[in-house]
Amino acid sequence: MPEPITSLTAAELARRYRDGSLDPVTVTEAYLAAIEAHPEGGKVYRVVTAQRALKQARAAKRRFDEGLRVGPMQGVPIAIKDLVGTAGDVTAAGSAVLGERPAEVEDAPVAARLDAAGAVFLGKTNMTELAYSGIGANPHYGTPGCALDPSRIPGGSSSGSGVAVASRLAAVAVGSDTGGSVRIPAAVNGIVGLKVTDGRIPTDGCAALSTTLDTIGPLARTAEDAWALYLAMTAEPHRPLAQAPARLTLLAPTTLLTDDLDDATRTGFEQGLARLEALGHHVRREPLPILLEAPAAYSRFGSFASHEVWALYQDLFESRRDDFDPHVADRVYLYADRPSSDYIRLQYARADLQRRFWPSLSGVDAVVGPTIPHVPVRIAEVMTDDGAYHRENNRILRNTAPFNVLGSPAVSVPVATTVDGLSIGLMIVTRPLEEELALGVARALELQGA
Amino acid sequence: MPEPITSLTAAELARRYRDGSLDPVTVTEAYLAAIEAHPEGGKVYRVVTAQRALKQARAAKRRFDEGLRVGPMQGVPIAIKDLVGTAGDVTAAGSAVLGERPAEVEDAPVAARLDAAGAVFLGKTNMTELAYSGIGANPHYGTPGCALDPSRIPGGSSSGSGVAVASRLAAVAVGSDTGGSVRIPAAVNGIVGLKVTDGRIPTDGCAALSTTLDTIGPLARTAEDAWALYLAMTAEPHRPLAQAPARLTLLAPTTLLTDDLDDATRTGFEQGLARLEALGHHVRREPLPILLEAPAAYSRFGSFASHEVWALYQDLFESRRDDFDPHVADRVYLYADRPSSDYIRLQYARADLQRRFWPSLSGVDAVVGPTIPHVPVRIAEVMTDDGAYHRENNRILRNTAPFNVLGSPAVSVPVATTVDGLSIGLMIVTRPLEEELALGVARALELQGA
Repeated sequence: MPEPITSLTAAELARRYRDGSLDPVTVTEAYLAAIEAHPEGGKVYRVVTAQRALKQARAAKRRFDEGLRVGPMQGVPIAIKDLVGTAGDVTAAGSAVLGERPAEVEDAPVAARLDAAGAVFLGKTNMTELAYSGIGANPHYGTPGCALDPSRIPGGSSSGSGVAVASRLAAVAVGSDTGGSVRIPAAVNGIVGLKVTDGRIPTDGCAALSTTLDTIGPLARTAEDAWALYLAMTAEPHRPLAQAPARLTLLAPTTLLTDDLDDATRTGFEQGLARLEALGHHVRREPLPILLEAPAAYSRFGSFASHEVWALYQDLFESRRDDFDPHVADRVYLYADRPSSDYIRLQYARADLQRRFWPSLSGVDAVVGPTIPHVPVRIAEVMTDDGAYHRENNRILRNTAPFNVLGSPAVSVPVATTVDGLSIGLMIVTRPLEEELALGVARALELQGA
Repeated sequence: MPEPITSLTAAELARRYRDGSLDPVTVTEAYLAAIEAHPEGGKVYRVVTAQRALKQARAAKRRFDEGLRVGPMQGVPIAIKDLVGTAGDVTAAGSAVLGERPAEVEDAPVAARLDAAGAVFLGKTNMTELAYSGIGANPHYGTPGCALDPSRIPGGSSSGSGVAVASRLAAVAVGSDTGGSVRIPAAVNGIVGLKVTDGRIPTDGCAALSTTLDTIGPLARTAEDAWALYLAMTAEPHRPLAQAPARLTLLAPTTLLTDDLDDATRTGFEQGLARLEALGHHVRREPLPILLEAPAAYSRFGSFASHEVWALYQDLFESRRDDFDPHVADRVYLYADRPSSDYIRLQYARADLQRRFWPSLSGVDAVVGPTIPHVPVRIAEVMTDDGAYHRENNRILRNTAPFNVLGSPAVSVPVATTVDGLSIGLMIVTRPLEEELALGVARALELQGA
């Protein structure tokens, strides 16, 4: 049996479109059929936008036929997290309450950029309500299972985007990352996810969780695809992903990031470090106490999301509390009405940490760690016990969230497979605006593995 | 009797230095003697830094002797508001509590720029404690009287900087403006004061009141001098102030800015508008309801300063409350511990207003109004009655504060003199970064008056 069309990467699709052996309409129809046929399809997508997808696919095909090419996203079927506004669709952001709002009149700027780049919008993906958890469960629209083991959590908050890409229900996907929401589902589902530098991609027209930290970012099967989608979302012209320099100095902190790893993650992470060394990089395993300042600031002052989600949605929570996911609402109320001095001091603490962090790491090109400290737990484990849910949520966000406080780009790339067929993600964190370096290192790991 | 040296503007000093008919040491000595001799000198300056001034004056003189010229601030004696850090001096910010801190080890960046520009630092000027009032009273270091009538308030919070320039105790002065603190003392003392665009001049190394709104700005006897000091503080090379274009469209809002003016201010302001029309500009007297959104946001959510001053100084207020000016402490406590959602929504409201304000005024080059709605009240009137103090404070900040919310530049320039010899200030507000246009209009008014 030949490989199905949906197993092609976006880069492979682009090549097949160029040589005329495939066309966007055929590919889009294959994806729509795959979503329809997949047991998790209805939980991965909150809504499938087949009409728009086919219209975009036909337009992309027409342009190819006319010899017009606008870049590697042309004709590529993508999934879009349901917090990015798209014309004609409701932006539910995983929420039944927000799902009652009218359909958007226009695309959010990031969606408009993707439309202009020729992408095909398959639909809006399911997510944690308001993106306010790393587990990826959703009581309103269902919880999609992990692509590698559907009894396990998909990771969140971009749960549908992660499962869609890993399960071949989209070639690439748009997610958002406020504390790890792109990187966590990427790690859990065994794909690549990029958290971008603060402000690099516009969040206008997207439902907010934290206006300070929200970032829009790509999920893809390869670093090359993530790079192409990233560039399209920044509205920069495409250019090939540069090869990462040889002999980088990579800091693997023994502080925080490697605390309490489960055995499979520890083994997989060590394999990842060995592979980086095999690529010629120098891995330094050292304490990095400054990293603890991010969780310390959150413990003292509350997280950015905890303050901002209340400022954004207080009226809705007060009028419709019972209509929200209780796991989300409980967390929102737990931190509501803190004094503004806590929030302002948190902003000051962040600015201070941002000033000091990278300057304290001169000579280090990137920081690496396991994206999450453990393999994904079973859905039943966290959905039957509120305490377990919140503990697991804190644990799954632990390694990713400090880098949102820093505002740095960070990629999660699969580096190992467990005996159970689960994937271990390695996180590569670089200085602000050095997305290309992080993805370049990820790309080298992929090529090494291939 | 010849005009005293201290009556020369900075521009005139620069000319006399160039032609060799005066030198910085002679001028600095004249200023130091004037401060010593002036009845308000000890209340205008918290500390006179004669040693540094003479050292800088000698260095400036030496450079002139060597033919080295670094710009129009070279050898110009300036007064610096006591919230700007200067090496070797305590930054008291009008506070007895902060006055106990050790002396600064280095100049704040803005002071370092002025030092590099060759300015002569006469001393640190008195101010409202923490810059948190527009009246200019200070129970710790004394309240300097208005330069035009010492029984009246000096205006604040840059009280000492305003009186120093108007009373010829400095050629120019550095102030700060968070709600009107440069423009108000400029209007009260009959001089020029410029509130700069947010972020245009660094506030690092300065004691903060509102990290969102604080701006450092110049006070001077002429728009030309204010321009030269402004450019030196931005670290841009000097260039002459451009003439304002002819036939500008100036909007004089009938909303808020002209409510409840006293007779002298109404008359003086109308004279100012007539003078603008005589210069060929088109003055439109129209409602501007969007202007009310700034005070409405403050009423609903509290001011930026009210939230941020608590985040900045909570520990000191809690441990030393009785050592602060009761007028300041009462106001701080009145608004302490508001929820962070109020502050965050205030930030959102500001961003929204900033996005809409100037685009709603296409065709309008600048907004004009009276800087303050009334001539300065007598010191005794507000210092014997707490209610009167707070009412007067709200009134004196009313016209200036909305433009801090907008982040626009705004200049106050004298346009009329009352029968009592007081001055009426006209405020000219321009789009962000259009300081030169505002000062250019002010300059034309000065030349017309001359």
